Amino acid sequence: MPRLNKAARDLVGSGALAHLVTLNADGAPQVAIVWMGCDGDELVSGHLMASQQKLRNVRRDPRVVISFEADTANPIGMRDYLVVHGTARVTEGGAPELLQRLAQNYIGPGTKFPPMPDPPPGFVLRVAIDRIGGSGEWAEQD
Amino acid sequence: MPRLNKAARDLVGSGALAHLVTLNADGAPQVAIVWMGCDGDELVSGHLMASQQKLRNVRRDPRVVISFEADTANPIGMRDYLVVHGTARVTEGGAPELLQRLAQNYIGPGTKFPPMPDPPPGFVLRVAIDRIGGSGEWAEQD
Repeated sequence: MPRLNKAARDLVGSGALAHLVTLNADGAPQVAIVWMGCDGDELVSGHLMASQQKLRNVRRDPRVVISFEADTANPIGMRDYLVVHGTARVTEGGAPELLQRLAQNYIGPGTKFPPMPDPPPGFVLRVAIDRIGGSGEWAEQD
Repeated sequence: MPRLNKAARDLVGSGALAHLVTLNADGAPQVAIVWMGCDGDELVSGHLMASQQKLRNVRRDPRVVISFEADTANPIGMRDYLVVHGTARVTEGGAPELLQRLAQNYIGPGTKFPPMPDPPPGFVLRVAIDRIGGSGEWAEQD
């Protein structure tokens, strides 16, 4: 399994939004912008509701693609980006704790998230990485 | 055909990158980050080379999804984003002129693009809009 190098992990941890693509039942692509983080060699996102289309989609077809915009650019001025092709699965529980961790990157240090008492345990989407692409310094494995 | 409202058109013209999702021959999603602009009621991107996977993909299966990050956020602090589901086609020629126009938004006013003499006429990807989604003020048609 390819691994994200330090530059890619730093990007994921920087608050860069994840454009998560899943496949609908008819094969059409669906995209949601979500918060993602690293958990070991996987990418993870937290979801409080089971009814979300993206979760239904990955249970049927686990192929996903995730893209992130970087703050860096090539010499011409075209922005770098990271693309991760992966295989996703959904596990039960742990969403509030993961969202609380990710909120520190995506909203800011000290954020309390989810902003509700007693959130449901929810679901975690876990993406095993199959291929890493895009434009930038992601290609070097370390 | 749904039309982008002023807020959505302003976002597209702001230099927000387009995460363009197409479908590979095996049905897996592919994503490329590209420059896009409005042309009438369509979204358009310019490509100098015919060999690009995204162009091959839309000639086989025209279903695409495009997502853009906004600078605005909801009251909780979650960033807004625009998602456009569409049907794409590829037309010949016009890529250098379109890229020159888009470079003013994406790199900056006065940019000369493509940065080469005598670029090939290339191809324009044209996306007819089927559905508009995301989080933000895109839902109101005007």
